Amino acid sequence: MIDRIQDPRLRAKRMDADAAAALIGHGMNVAMSGFTGAGYPKAVPLALASRVHAAHDRGEDFRIKVLTGASTAPELDGALARAEGIELRLPYQSDPVLRERINAGELEYIDLHLSHVAQYTWFGYFGPIDVAVVEVTSIDEDGHLVPSSSVGNNKTWLEQAGRVILEVNHWQPAALRGMHDIYYGTALPPNRKPIPLVRPDSRIGEPWLQCDPDKVVAVVETDAPDRNTPFDPPDAASKRIAENLLEFFRHEIKRGRLTPSLLPLQSGVGNIANAVLAGLAESGFHDLTAYTEVIQDAMLDLIERDVLRVASATAFSLSPTAIETFVSNVDRYRERIVLRPQEISNHPELIRRLGCIAMNGMIEADLYGNVNSTHVCGSRVMNGIGGSGDFARNAYLSVFMAPSTAKRGAISTIVPMVSHVDHTEHDVMVVVTDQGLADLRGLSPKQRARAVIDHCAHPDYRDALQDYFDRASRDSFGKHTPHLLGEALSWHQRFIETGTMRA
Amino acid sequence: MIDRIQDPRLRAKRMDADAAAALIGHGMNVAMSGFTGAGYPKAVPLALASRVHAAHDRGEDFRIKVLTGASTAPELDGALARAEGIELRLPYQSDPVLRERINAGELEYIDLHLSHVAQYTWFGYFGPIDVAVVEVTSIDEDGHLVPSSSVGNNKTWLEQAGRVILEVNHWQPAALRGMHDIYYGTALPPNRKPIPLVRPDSRIGEPWLQCDPDKVVAVVETDAPDRNTPFDPPDAASKRIAENLLEFFRHEIKRGRLTPSLLPLQSGVGNIANAVLAGLAESGFHDLTAYTEVIQDAMLDLIERDVLRVASATAFSLSPTAIETFVSNVDRYRERIVLRPQEISNHPELIRRLGCIAMNGMIEADLYGNVNSTHVCGSRVMNGIGGSGDFARNAYLSVFMAPSTAKRGAISTIVPMVSHVDHTEHDVMVVVTDQGLADLRGLSPKQRARAVIDHCAHPDYRDALQDYFDRASRDSFGKHTPHLLGEALSWHQRFIETGTMRA
Repeated sequence: MIDRIQDPRLRAKRMDADAAAALIGHGMNVAMSGFTGAGYPKAVPLALASRVHAAHDRGEDFRIKVLTGASTAPELDGALARAEGIELRLPYQSDPVLRERINAGELEYIDLHLSHVAQYTWFGYFGPIDVAVVEVTSIDEDGHLVPSSSVGNNKTWLEQAGRVILEVNHWQPAALRGMHDIYYGTALPPNRKPIPLVRPDSRIGEPWLQCDPDKVVAVVETDAPDRNTPFDPPDAASKRIAENLLEFFRHEIKRGRLTPSLLPLQSGVGNIANAVLAGLAESGFHDLTAYTEVIQDAMLDLIERDVLRVASATAFSLSPTAIETFVSNVDRYRERIVLRPQEISNHPELIRRLGCIAMNGMIEADLYGNVNSTHVCGSRVMNGIGGSGDFARNAYLSVFMAPSTAKRGAISTIVPMVSHVDHTEHDVMVVVTDQGLADLRGLSPKQRARAVIDHCAHPDYRDALQDYFDRASRDSFGKHTPHLLGEALSWHQRFIETGTMRA
Repeated sequence: MIDRIQDPRLRAKRMDADAAAALIGHGMNVAMSGFTGAGYPKAVPLALASRVHAAHDRGEDFRIKVLTGASTAPELDGALARAEGIELRLPYQSDPVLRERINAGELEYIDLHLSHVAQYTWFGYFGPIDVAVVEVTSIDEDGHLVPSSSVGNNKTWLEQAGRVILEVNHWQPAALRGMHDIYYGTALPPNRKPIPLVRPDSRIGEPWLQCDPDKVVAVVETDAPDRNTPFDPPDAASKRIAENLLEFFRHEIKRGRLTPSLLPLQSGVGNIANAVLAGLAESGFHDLTAYTEVIQDAMLDLIERDVLRVASATAFSLSPTAIETFVSNVDRYRERIVLRPQEISNHPELIRRLGCIAMNGMIEADLYGNVNSTHVCGSRVMNGIGGSGDFARNAYLSVFMAPSTAKRGAISTIVPMVSHVDHTEHDVMVVVTDQGLADLRGLSPKQRARAVIDHCAHPDYRDALQDYFDRASRDSFGKHTPHLLGEALSWHQRFIETGTMRA
């Protein structure tokens, strides 16, 4: 095995995870790598959680603020949440233990647009970063850091942190080297310049991360896999959603508003997204590109089948099987995949320039095209907005997708009024469910309501929605966006009280 | 008087407004100039309204779709609304007659981000534009059009419309020539390039609009003023809001997050904005810049006093007195003012690059920092979102301002849950009322609630808000963003039923 720490200055700082974790203290602002369960530190957070447990056992306070790229894994968010070691968490999470603590009101969580995190750190909005804990694949002779399976905010963490702990993970394929593009041209206003990216595969930076070696206080070696879970095959509802969306794409091509190579695709993660991508491979689309956040199994498959020409993202999120495929064909993938900092993958300037097709999941949509991506019944956060806002507002097409019901029919995805708004009526162009697709472009609120009821609502809830809309159109205070405020949120309240939205 | 129509090809197409209006028929998609009551056509819409009245008297249908830059004036929106001649209106309006019709449910209105309008037209989302009616200041020998007091979407209208009607308004100062910067580098994805603007005063285009003379079907001469209304002097609440915001700016300078020249200012229109700008002149700020939509009286005054170095916008909105000042010093202003298409003045790429300070009014904000800019009681639209979303999400600082109560105290600006969301919790950094300022940066939802209640709510409503928050924190379904859905909108419902939000 080639030594992955070539720089003697950094090799001298090797230590075990316990020793490294001892450098993190109560009340610190700690920035960690990690995006969608990829490239997060595997050892130091676990060692830190032990320290936290021990401190609490001694009756001492020990809580830190944790900033990341996006979601991580049980070894980071789960362990620290279980230890009650997190005071504040941002900008995105999906860990069940952490989520439970957040919704019990036991810790603070800030849900941010993923493109905002790096610049807000530079602006000083989160205060100074005390320590960064960043996983890398290897360290070159001259101290350059080869990133691992995600880039996220690592460039910013390494530059902004007072002290840096590196984890060198031997599990990460050495062949990742050369796949990253780290743009070092960002600046603070008023000194910002245009970002020279004009295609999803433009390379505008360097293949490594820079870090002042004097700031590095510890280098920890690990050999542990990313949190990679096998994907379920698409279920029937996901397949129907995919079919509805693909039919829409074909319609847009006929109308001359898209070509068969579409425009750069952004796709959320999960079963519906996987079904859509799988559908593209079988529907005659070709020469596709992706400018997205995460490369998941189905996207790798599209590259394999030569349907997808290039993919730009900030992270992988692959199943164990896909990892094997990836490693065995890595030279081929290196020509087709670029991993960037999330401030670039999610940058409004670039998303708008490229004209992305943004496809994201949702919790619910209302009659007027407002979308809730984050809060069940307006108060209980699921994961977070992620990059959906960065993409939806700046996209050529913004699409939101979900099955028409949840909880075996007890919840209608289409509601009179969403209980929380993440995407406003101004930003939502297309709503798709297994029932059909509502194209809201160029429609007024009342026209949107008719389209959403007719095309997206589940038949079990359609009459009740129509009834609400009819009565609101008659009795509403204003008739532009008709609402009956006394019952606009009653479906959610009924669910809380009775376990179903059904009357 | 120098003839304002130098091109003989276009001079040959002169006709009166009635003859020009006769070229517009029922069902057409008509794009008109106009932004904040500036630069809208003055004669053809009035003549068209007469045609509509006559058709309706004969029992014939006559309704058109009207697209503009933003709000216009009684001679356009008012006259056509009164004639019941509008089927669909976008993207922004502020006319009382039109607003009444919209809220009576008598016509369709689409409220769009102002930066989206031009590109959605190019994408084909509104269908083909049949006719454009565009006011200009003059026409050069070679057919170049010197824009008038607003640019708005005129570049797009002239390029996309099948036929063009020009109004040459002799009232518009001939000296406007040279003040505009029309960028012709836009393209459709995937062919877009970086927009080379790096400072508010960058000139990246041409001083005139281009138009194929063969498409021009009529040239109408007018001599009529823009809808310019005198400004009221700032009232006490506006002054206190301004003081609160200026104190915050000074605090940010002390913390090193701003310099005394701040960053490019974007300012909504109205009394509060005027008070803030007036306050800047008297508070030691200097070398300021503006990258905004509208240049109003107070901004001209800041230039006059050498506090504001340059201002970029897409329109003027000046009082009759300010117009006089402007005309008598126009050469001085020409060096300091640039008028651009609204797709450039409001472009996310440029707002984010420049790092604007976005200051906009609001109808209401809720405990968690969601802002309603458009709908009274969730259903009755006031004007529209305008450019507030373009600016807020991409700004260095996003500020929303309003007095803490409205309707002589019957309405609280701070409510448990806003009745409509235009700006989500992810986009609102600072909320200011006459009571104080809440800095929401880096705060979780519950922390935001405490800041908003303590600093922004009117004392008459503070206890009720605290009581709601306390009970929601105890009894909410989820404790991340505590809400009691059965009463979240009850303040609005009470106002509808009783005329006051007071219990």
